[in-house]
Amino acid sequence: MSTPSTKPTDLTRSETLSLSALALVCFTVLANTFQGEGEPLIASLALSGLAFAANYSMIRWLGPSFIKAGLKGRDMAKVNNKYELPECMGAICAVVYLLVIIIFIPFPFYKDIVVATSGGGNRDVVMNVEYVQKGRLLHKFPHSKLASFLSAIISLQSITLLGIGDDLFDIRWRHKFFIPAFASIPLLVIYFIDFGVTSVVLPTVLQPYVGRELLDLGFLYYGYMAAFCIFSPNSINILAGINGIEVLQSIVIALLLAFNDVLYLVTPYPHPATDSHLFSLYFLLPFLGVSFALLAHNKYPARVFVGDTYCYFAGMIFVVVSILGHFSKTLILLLVPQIFNFVYSVPQLFGLVPCPRHRLPHFNARTGLLEPSVTKWGDKQPHLIIESVLHLLGRLKLLRVKVDNDTGRILETSNFTILNLWLVWRGPLREDRLAWEITAMQTAVGLFGLFIRHRLALLVFREDNWGIGSAV
Amino acid sequence: MSTPSTKPTDLTRSETLSLSALALVCFTVLANTFQGEGEPLIASLALSGLAFAANYSMIRWLGPSFIKAGLKGRDMAKVNNKYELPECMGAICAVVYLLVIIIFIPFPFYKDIVVATSGGGNRDVVMNVEYVQKGRLLHKFPHSKLASFLSAIISLQSITLLGIGDDLFDIRWRHKFFIPAFASIPLLVIYFIDFGVTSVVLPTVLQPYVGRELLDLGFLYYGYMAAFCIFSPNSINILAGINGIEVLQSIVIALLLAFNDVLYLVTPYPHPATDSHLFSLYFLLPFLGVSFALLAHNKYPARVFVGDTYCYFAGMIFVVVSILGHFSKTLILLLVPQIFNFVYSVPQLFGLVPCPRHRLPHFNARTGLLEPSVTKWGDKQPHLIIESVLHLLGRLKLLRVKVDNDTGRILETSNFTILNLWLVWRGPLREDRLAWEITAMQTAVGLFGLFIRHRLALLVFREDNWGIGSAV
Repeated sequence: MSTPSTKPTDLTRSETLSLSALALVCFTVLANTFQGEGEPLIASLALSGLAFAANYSMIRWLGPSFIKAGLKGRDMAKVNNKYELPECMGAICAVVYLLVIIIFIPFPFYKDIVVATSGGGNRDVVMNVEYVQKGRLLHKFPHSKLASFLSAIISLQSITLLGIGDDLFDIRWRHKFFIPAFASIPLLVIYFIDFGVTSVVLPTVLQPYVGRELLDLGFLYYGYMAAFCIFSPNSINILAGINGIEVLQSIVIALLLAFNDVLYLVTPYPHPATDSHLFSLYFLLPFLGVSFALLAHNKYPARVFVGDTYCYFAGMIFVVVSILGHFSKTLILLLVPQIFNFVYSVPQLFGLVPCPRHRLPHFNARTGLLEPSVTKWGDKQPHLIIESVLHLLGRLKLLRVKVDNDTGRILETSNFTILNLWLVWRGPLREDRLAWEITAMQTAVGLFGLFIRHRLALLVFREDNWGIGSAV
Repeated sequence: MSTPSTKPTDLTRSETLSLSALALVCFTVLANTFQGEGEPLIASLALSGLAFAANYSMIRWLGPSFIKAGLKGRDMAKVNNKYELPECMGAICAVVYLLVIIIFIPFPFYKDIVVATSGGGNRDVVMNVEYVQKGRLLHKFPHSKLASFLSAIISLQSITLLGIGDDLFDIRWRHKFFIPAFASIPLLVIYFIDFGVTSVVLPTVLQPYVGRELLDLGFLYYGYMAAFCIFSPNSINILAGINGIEVLQSIVIALLLAFNDVLYLVTPYPHPATDSHLFSLYFLLPFLGVSFALLAHNKYPARVFVGDTYCYFAGMIFVVVSILGHFSKTLILLLVPQIFNFVYSVPQLFGLVPCPRHRLPHFNARTGLLEPSVTKWGDKQPHLIIESVLHLLGRLKLLRVKVDNDTGRILETSNFTILNLWLVWRGPLREDRLAWEITAMQTAVGLFGLFIRHRLALLVFREDNWGIGSAV
C-alpha cells in the first residue's frame, strides 16, 4: 500500500512479501497435513489462506484485462469518477474458489482411502483380482458423502457460469431473477437421488392435530428448496450498490454460519450432525478466504467492482451448505436483513411504485455524503390505495415522503431499499460509514438469530438439533 | 432457411415448426421414459434432441448479444467480410449441454432409486427410522458410479469456465496451452479416490521379461492422464481456422466413439465393460445434439464462430468418457489426424520456424479458393540444420518450399498445419471442400483405427477388451 509501484497492476513490495509469506506458511501446513494424519480442517484452513493470496494477486493483475474485455464501470458515488474500474471481479473469486475446493476433495476422504486400501489382512492375495476389477475396495468408502460434495461443486460452478453470462450480457431483471433456479438443479437432483428426505419436523403444538411428529412434504419440499436457491443469491444481489456492501454482508453471513458450525464441533460428546457441519466449514472457509481478498480491493474507496457473479456465488454457497447440511432454517434467520430488504423492495420490484434503473443511494457531491435516492411522482400520481399506503409508511418512518404543501400531492418518495431507509433514519452518511453500519446491523441481527435458533427453538420443537435428537 | 424472417435473429417459420416438432416428440418420449421402465438410453436420446433444438435456437437468438459484448470476429476467407459474426458460440453449446446432462443425472440411477426405496418387505416399519436418519436405504445405491458421473460434469464445467475466460481475455498461447490441465484436476482427483487403478496390461511379448501381466505405473499414470487431458482439447483447438472444421472433426470423433460403445452393447452375452460404454454414450449423445446444432450455423458459409470454448469442451468430453470408461488407448487411435497435426506443427509451436499469429490457409479473393499460407524467410534465413530439414520435407512432399533459383535461398515455406499440407497435396480448394475432405480423411483414419483396435490388438495383447477378459 505504502510503496508506490511501477505499474498500478503490480503488487507493492510489502504486498508481495506478506502474500508470499502467507502462501509459504499455508503450503508448509498443507504439505504436513498430507504427510501426517490428514486432518482435513487444517488443510481447509491452509487452502483458504492460499485462496486469499491467489485471489488478492489475481484481482490486481487481471483488472486491466477485464477493462479491455469491456467488463468495467464508473463509481457513481465519487467526486472524481472519470476512471473506469474493472467490473465482475467475482468471477476471479469464483474460479479461484472452485480450483481450491476441487483440490481439497481428497482431504476429507483421506482416512477412508487409507482404510479402504490397506484394510483386510490378506491384501496381497486379494489385490490383483479386486484391484483390477473394481479398483480400490470400494465398499468401505463413503461415496454418498463424496457425491454430496461433488454436487455442491456442480451447483457452484453452474451459478458461476450463469453469473458471468449475466455480467456479460446485461440480462433483464425479470429473466435473471431465475438464473439461480438453473444452478439449483444439480443440488436438487442429487438431493433426490441421495437423501430423499422430504419430511419436516412439526412444531410441538401442531403435532396432536396432525397426529405425527414428521410431515412428509414430498415434492413440495423440492419446491421449497428451489425457492430457497432462487431467493438467497438474489437477496444478496439486491442488497448492493455501495462500495463493499456485497462482500461485507456475505462475510458476516459466512462467519456466522461458520460460528454455528463450530458450536457443533466443540460439543463434549460426538454430535450426529458433526459431519454436516464439517462439510459446511470446508465450503465456508475458502469462501471467506476469497471474500476477504475481494474486500481489500472493493472496500471504500473501491478499486474494483464485484459484479452479479459474486452475489450469486455467495448466495449459492449459503444455500449449498445449508441444504446439504440440513440447516436451511438457520440460514433463514441469518438472512433476515436480506429478507426485509426484499419484502420492502416488493412495491418497486413488482411495479406498484415506479422503479428506476438504479436505486442506489444518491451521492451529494457538495457534502460528499450519501442521501436517500428518490422516485419522483410529478404529474403521474399513485393510485389512491397506494397513496394512502405511502403516507402510512411515511408516518411509520419506513419511507421519506415529500408532499407539496399546497396541493397535498406526493412529490417524491425515497426508494424502497434498506440502504435508503437506513439513510432516512440516520441522515446523510459517508459511503463507508453506511456500509459498516449495515454490516454491524447484519451481525447483530444474525447473532440474535443464532441465539433464537439454539435457545428458543426448544419452545417450538421438542428437540434442538444441537441435542442428540434427529438431525433433520 | 427458405422463408425470409422479419429479424435476422428470429427463427424462420420452417425452422420454428421443425424444431417445435422435434422438441415435442422428445418431450413425449422423455415423459414416457420417466413413467415407464426408465430406460436411460432412450431418455438420453430424447434429451439430446432437446439439446439440439435448444442450442439451435439459442445460437440464433443470442448472437447479437455476443456481438454487443465484444465477442465477435470477421471471416477472413470471404470476399464480403464487412459483417462481424458472433464468436464463442461454443459457450452456448457448453451451457446447454451441461444443463441437459445435469437434468439427465437421475435417469441412469432410476432403477437403483426404485430398488433402494421399495426394497425390503417391511418398508413401512423400517421407514421412519431409516428414512430420517440416513435418507434412503443407501447401501444398495451405486454411489461410485454417481461420483464418476458428477466428476465428469465438474471437469466439463471447469473447461467451460476456463474456455470462456480464454475467449474473453485472449490469453497467450504458451499460457492457454495449460488451461485444460486445471480442468483435469477434478477428473484426476476422483480417479484417485474412486478407482485408483494405475496398472496397465503389458503386451504379451514383454510379459516374460517383466514377469507379470500388469505393470503398476503408480503416479506416472496420473501424469499420463494429465498429459492426455492437456493434449486432447488443445489438439482439437489447433486443427482449426476454416468454417466448420472444429465441429466436423469433433462430430466424427464422437460418432466413432459412440459406434465403438454400441459394439459393446450388442454383444450376445453381457459384457463386463457395458456400464463404462453406456456411461460414455450418455455423455456423447447430448454432445452430438449440441454439435449438430452448432454445425448448422458454423458450416460454410459460417454465420457464427465456435471459439476456443467449443474446442476445449469437445476435447474434454472425449477425455472424460475415455478415462472414466477406461479406453483411453482407443481415443488415441481416433485422434491420429490431430496427433499428426500437432507433431507436424511442433517446428512452429516451439519456435524453430517463425510462427505467424494466424496460420489458417490463405484466401485467394480472385479465385475464391484457399491456398496454403506461407512463412516468408527473406533476409533471415533458417539455421543450416533446419534448412536441410526443410528441403528434405519439401522433397518428401510434406512441405511446399519456394527457393530463389539464383541464390538458392529459401523464400517461403508453407505453414506447418495439416490444412495447409492438404492444400499442398490437393491444390487450391474451396473452403467447404477442404473441410469435407479433411472430415472424410478423419473418418477413414478413425474407422481404420477401430478396426486395428478390435482385430489386431489380439496380436499384441492376450485378450481384447471386447472379449470376456479384464476391462482395464
